[in-house]
Amino acid sequence: MNIIEDLNWRYATKRYTNKPLSEEQVNTILETIRLSATSLGLQPFEIYDIRSTELRTQLREAAYNQPQLTEASHVLVFAVWTEVTEAMVDEYLQFVASTRNRELAQLDGFRKSILSYLGNKETEDIIKWASNQAYIALGKAMAAAAQLRIDSTPMEGFNNQTVDELLGLKEKNLHAAVMLTLGYRDTENDPLAVAKKVRKPIHQIHRII
Amino acid sequence: MNIIEDLNWRYATKRYTNKPLSEEQVNTILETIRLSATSLGLQPFEIYDIRSTELRTQLREAAYNQPQLTEASHVLVFAVWTEVTEAMVDEYLQFVASTRNRELAQLDGFRKSILSYLGNKETEDIIKWASNQAYIALGKAMAAAAQLRIDSTPMEGFNNQTVDELLGLKEKNLHAAVMLTLGYRDTENDPLAVAKKVRKPIHQIHRII
Repeated sequence: MNIIEDLNWRYATKRYTNKPLSEEQVNTILETIRLSATSLGLQPFEIYDIRSTELRTQLREAAYNQPQLTEASHVLVFAVWTEVTEAMVDEYLQFVASTRNRELAQLDGFRKSILSYLGNKETEDIIKWASNQAYIALGKAMAAAAQLRIDSTPMEGFNNQTVDELLGLKEKNLHAAVMLTLGYRDTENDPLAVAKKVRKPIHQIHRII
Repeated sequence: MNIIEDLNWRYATKRYTNKPLSEEQVNTILETIRLSATSLGLQPFEIYDIRSTELRTQLREAAYNQPQLTEASHVLVFAVWTEVTEAMVDEYLQFVASTRNRELAQLDGFRKSILSYLGNKETEDIIKWASNQAYIALGKAMAAAAQLRIDSTPMEGFNNQTVDELLGLKEKNLHAAVMLTLGYRDTENDPLAVAKKVRKPIHQIHRII
């Protein structure tokens, strides 16, 4: 099975060469993120694609000096919603109605379920909910990258508040949830490139009831 | 690009036929979950594979009567860790050392980083951290399913506490974070099977800086 080979090939790359991804490759990975499933279809995140060298250096400082942030070809920051307003829900429903050629009134039940599910959540719970959706997309993006034999590293180890400030996310009601670096492994300088993958045998994590 | 076609093919299936997945197919999807990347490599979740009809009915009740839970071929519950003890970290490090043929002492720095990152987290933060890892695996499992032309539905809309009780998770220091149903779409009874996919254009969620 293809995807098994892909996932066996990939590992959490620590050191990247300076070989860049093509725009086409980046677009494919962005497209898997765009097509990813999200709760209620709301797509509650934006992808910040950091190309500024200065910003990359600052991100690296905010991430315990992890070299991927300046060495990798691309750095994507998943910036998730910190609020869901009625106006945002209505804009989404307009989009659903126009895409599917339906009357807005037909979506009234759906509108009520969205608002009853999200309308009363605290900021922290909205962030948690939105982050979960970002992580589904992250998983798909990593699978896509592996299929294209592009290396990737999911990165959670950074000061989220500092990154929010660096990217001006707070004033846009966004929050840096997780990052993904993309590029090509530097096998000479990354000892993990040849390390054996450590995974529990399936019987340790699979329970049939 | 293959994965783009796969993701365009998939949708959040609401109604399934009674056609079962083969054991080989289920095993491939479980293998993508097992191989998925997790924070620090800890794999902080177990997969409950619910085959009991009675339990399926109870899960459906706990999930606002969503038909997938009794109709789909398979129901996987991602049960995430609610705590990380020193003993668990040491067991993991033993496993890393034996897999990679290293001395335990060489992993002392790694041990310290794990404990400083996770050792002081509250239960709620451990659940959040572990859930994020489960969602990466969920994304990969969905990508694998789509590649195999197996339908899947990620499900968050359920009473987590009730599911914890039904599966006896609390006493195992686990918590039901999210579910995934797998099977084959019932195109005759699922109006969503033919509905146009609703996704924002890429320029609305992608920012180059």
